[in-house]
Formats: sequence, C-alpha cells, structure tokens
Amino acid sequence: MRLVEVKHVIALVRQRGLASVLVDLAERIEQDYRRWGQFDKSPRYAAHSPHGVIELMPIADAERFGCKYVNGHPANQAAGLQTVIGFGVLADVATGYPLMIAEMTLMTALRTAAMSALAARHLARPNARSMAIIGLGAQSEFQAVAFQALLGITELRVFDVDPAATAKFLGNMQGSGLRIVSTDTAGEAVEGVDIVTTVTADKRASTVLSDNMIGGGIHINAVGGDCPGKTELQAAILHRARVFVEFEPQTRIEGEIQQVPADFPVTELWQVIAGETTGREHRDEITLFDSVGFAIEDFSALSYLFDATSDIALHREIDLLAAPADPRDLFGLLRQPEPALARV
Amino acid sequence: MRLVEVKHVIALVRQRGLASVLVDLAERIEQDYRRWGQFDKSPRYAAHSPHGVIELMPIADAERFGCKYVNGHPANQAAGLQTVIGFGVLADVATGYPLMIAEMTLMTALRTAAMSALAARHLARPNARSMAIIGLGAQSEFQAVAFQALLGITELRVFDVDPAATAKFLGNMQGSGLRIVSTDTAGEAVEGVDIVTTVTADKRASTVLSDNMIGGGIHINAVGGDCPGKTELQAAILHRARVFVEFEPQTRIEGEIQQVPADFPVTELWQVIAGETTGREHRDEITLFDSVGFAIEDFSALSYLFDATSDIALHREIDLLAAPADPRDLFGLLRQPEPALARV
Repeated sequence: MRLVEVKHVIALVRQRGLASVLVDLAERIEQDYRRWGQFDKSPRYAAHSPHGVIELMPIADAERFGCKYVNGHPANQAAGLQTVIGFGVLADVATGYPLMIAEMTLMTALRTAAMSALAARHLARPNARSMAIIGLGAQSEFQAVAFQALLGITELRVFDVDPAATAKFLGNMQGSGLRIVSTDTAGEAVEGVDIVTTVTADKRASTVLSDNMIGGGIHINAVGGDCPGKTELQAAILHRARVFVEFEPQTRIEGEIQQVPADFPVTELWQVIAGETTGREHRDEITLFDSVGFAIEDFSALSYLFDATSDIALHREIDLLAAPADPRDLFGLLRQPEPALARV
Repeated sequence: MRLVEVKHVIALVRQRGLASVLVDLAERIEQDYRRWGQFDKSPRYAAHSPHGVIELMPIADAERFGCKYVNGHPANQAAGLQTVIGFGVLADVATGYPLMIAEMTLMTALRTAAMSALAARHLARPNARSMAIIGLGAQSEFQAVAFQALLGITELRVFDVDPAATAKFLGNMQGSGLRIVSTDTAGEAVEGVDIVTTVTADKRASTVLSDNMIGGGIHINAVGGDCPGKTELQAAILHRARVFVEFEPQTRIEGEIQQVPADFPVTELWQVIAGETTGREHRDEITLFDSVGFAIEDFSALSYLFDATSDIALHREIDLLAAPADPRDLFGLLRQPEPALARV
C-alpha cells in the first residue's frame, strides 16, 4: 500500500501548480457532492480532553472507504506547534484493504479553499472580481489562490489584527498577479467588495463582521466559525442572508448557525450543486456559506490524491498488511529464513 | 512521527523472541486492564458492506489516544487475501499529534494470544499443563506459544477439519518443545485436557464444542466466536460455566453469549484482574473466556510497540505533519527554494 507524505504533496503541487491542483480538487468535490445520496455519512467521532479534541471522520461509498484523523488544539500555537494536523486513509470496500495513508495537514488546507471557491461559484454574483479576507493565518493564501483560479478574482482587500500575519500574507502573495490592498480595520477591508472571506483563528464567539458592514449582494464565505463556541459573524447578518451549509446536523453544532434557533432555515449546498434547488436568486441577495468542513471533502481529497500520486516519485510503498503466501500462515512470517528487512 | 511496518514487527519478534514478546504484551494488557476506569471507552464504528465490515476502534486515557483500523472480509480467503488486516495509530492527547502509525495485522494476532493466556492465568486451574486447540488457522500457533510461555502448558491436542491446516501447524511448531498430538475429531482433542481453545474461522453459528465434550474443571478459551452470527459453542455449555467477558456491551453482540438472553450473568475480566471479584472459585468449576477482542488490548499493543521500536532499525521516520517554522505559514512550505524531497 501507499504512503503519501507532506513532501509528496509538496512535490505534486510544485509539479502541477497550486492553482491547477485547487481547480482539480474543486471539480472532484463537485462530482462527489452531486452524488450526495451515494455516501454513507456518519457523525464524526470526537475524543475531547482538557487540551483539545481528536476527531475521526469516516465516510464511504460503494467502492471506497475514507477516514480522516484530525485534531484541534488551540494551545499548540503558543508552543510553536500547529493547532490542526491530520492524516487520512483510503480503503477498498470490497476487500477491506487500505490502499493509501496520506498526510491531510496540507491537503485539508487545499480542500477547504477548493470547497470555498466551489461554493462561491454557485452563490456569489457571476461577475464578482473583488474579495476581502479577514484573518491572514494558515488558510488565507490558499483561499486567495482558489478564488483567483476558480472565480477570476483579481482584487483583494485584506486585514488581520496582527501586522506580522499581514506581512507574511503579502510576502507569500508576491508575484500572484492579484492586486492586494491591506487595510487597518475589517470594516475598511469589506468596503465595496463582492465577496467576504472570514478565516480568523480566534477560538471564541467573536464578531469579525458586524451587520452594518454587509451591503446587499455580497457573498460571505465564513470559514473560521467551525467548532462549538467559535463563531465570527454577528447573528443579525444571518437573518438577512440565505444560508448554505455542508451537512446540516453537523453545522448546527459547529457553524455560525449555532447562534440561531434550530429551526432557522438553511439549504444544504449539495442540493444547489446537484441542481435540485437554486443558489443565488438575485443580484442584491446576501448569500452565506457557513463552512465547517465535511467528510465528503476529505474523501474527494483522498481520492484525488490516490489518482494523482501513482508515480513512485510521489509516494512511498509501505507494508502494513503482512500478506503471507498462505493467508492462514501468519506465524510462518516470523520463521522466514531470510530476514524480511531485506525485502525493502 | 514513526511508522512501524510488518518487517519491523518481524525484526522485533526475532530480536526478542516470540515468547518474550507475548509475556511482555500480556503484562502490558494486565496493567491497562487494572486501570480500566481511566479509559474513555467508545463503541466501535463499523462500516458494513455486502462484502464485509471496516471498523474503527478508538480508545484513550489521559495521555494517549489509540485507534485501530481493522476489517473483516470472509470472502477474501478464497481470493488468496487475508480476511483480517489492520493498522493502528497512537497519538498524544495533550497536542493531538500522532506519534506512530503501526501495522496491526501481526500485532492483533499477538495481542489476542497474549490476552487469552492472561485470562487463562486468572481462570484456569493453577496446575493446568494440557490444552486442546480446535481450529488451526492463522491464530493457532500464537495461542500455543502464549500458553506455553505464560501458563507452562506442555502438551497440546489439536484438531482441524482441514488436514492442510494441521500440517501447517505441526510444521510451524517443530522445535517448540511442546508435546503435540493431532486427533481425528474435536471430541478426541478435548479428552482429558485442562484448557480448550477454540479458534475456528467458520463464519456462521456452528458447534465446535458440544456440551457432552466438556468435563468439570475445564477452562474454555473461546476465541473464534467473535462477531454477530459467528459462534462456536453449544449454548448448553454457557449455562454450566462461569462466563467472563472483556467489555459486556460489545460481547453481548459479538460473542458466544449472543446465543443467550441479555440478562445472562457475565463477569467483566478487568474486575478479576483488578482484584475486585474472584476468578476461578473451585477445582471443578467450568470457566469460559468469551473473547472478542477489545480496544484496550490494541491500546496496550500500540503502547508496547511504541516503547519497543524507538531504535531506528525498528521503525521508519515519516512526515504527515508538515511542521512549518511558523505554524501560520503552511503556504510557505510550497514556496521553499529547496525541494522538500531533498530533506529525506
């Protein structure tokens, strides 16, 4: 079976170009969302501790089983560690054999950005060209490149409370071809834009966007309100917008809509993608994608990665399966005359 | 982080000796069972398909999170594949970072045998020296070595419906120091023994042991009745025995006791190990360990493996975590001047 490490994903992205990978990922996600009913969807498993949470996100269709391991440890950042890392497994349903274990630290960032841009393609005004990004952390550059590649965004207005984050973002975006203006407040950033992306890391209910900042016709891509107790938008915005979610039972707990009653109307995005309901209905409508990240997106990312990394330069062969010549003779492996170490 | 492959486990077993590994594993399991209350125990997650099942078995204490991926695909054997393979992850609860991914195909066989012998040490007569093994598939040799090492079993009486399985077993056991008699029927195998181990692979309710075959004082180590619809013992035996289980809610569904009403009395083995209740109470009592395999045993196996494989000859370093110098600069990894591939 195959192991895809961080270096392999980096090599893949350098080979194909980030924009091209994001476009392909979005297409894969779109295909999978269109066949929503074919997936066996489960609530995620979460092991909570005083420090954070470790989650397992399993999902399967008739052919493939996928599962992502992912953590969320806010205090990691102070220790110089990442707050979110992950890896995934893709397995063959017919035999139960795992096919691939892959890093999902970079891939989660990629699929999140691809998903955001995919949603915006269905929900933002067709001629959207400018976007504000509030929060310039680990996810911000991926959002910028995804919206440039998938929607033709040409202008960014960006803001972060931390000037160091802004400097990092501007440095990373050099040569991107995007016109970028950094602003002193979130309010200035959203002035006149077609799309607002919020990706702050604050682990509390905060108000990154207040109601008076949001004009008619805007699409809001709300990425950072993604776990219980963590929201970014003033609730009044939700009441003026049409709200789209990935998987309603999960978003009720984790998304911006945890601020509003359980009967607050939302639309699952797959229905828009599958053509079962409308996305944006008129120019002046406020649309909101309340993004929390759903297992199908990881499944799409793992499937994409499995297809894209068959070249031996892009993975490593590993053995977790034993594979004795006689399946009943596991014990015999321990008695081989030649050390198995010589095999690799 | 660390990857422990099949070849590494083989090397470890050759280095330390199988008996020694089984003794150490049993000790680790015993320690973990003694602190039963410290574990966050969850029901396993199961994705069923027409071909089989893929399961996730997560468990955690305050320091470590463990999870095993394992399948069960009976039809695999006809295709020359193993019916059960697995791998596990061990993670640090404080940071959410995975520490190790390890093969659990061989390790599951090892921990199952260690668990059986550990249970028998508490439940079989103290002077037990002879054991019958019914079913000579992939698990049988591990059971034989574990009972020899942990209980001082010196004599085996063995039976399988397939002479090829018997031949494989006898070949593998050459030089073990055990006196082994192979018999023509299961009934002959159990004649006069102190312990009976059943480890057949038949995926239906079958009767490997019938009531008239079981005399007073025997300990039955029932390993093969381990999933819904798969049992090995005639129900009448259960009514004559004191029945011990790993985790009652799971065994009610998967074990031999699926044949009897839900109020049939059982004792959880950890209570015996922790000294909270008695094991065997007198010489003539029939004791029965209704083994299905529980997540703590995998946790113990993963912890053991993590401690035992720190030598670089016994694992491989892999990167699923990215680890950018600035945790907020994941994007920067894609822009490194030196290809990350050069790092390894």
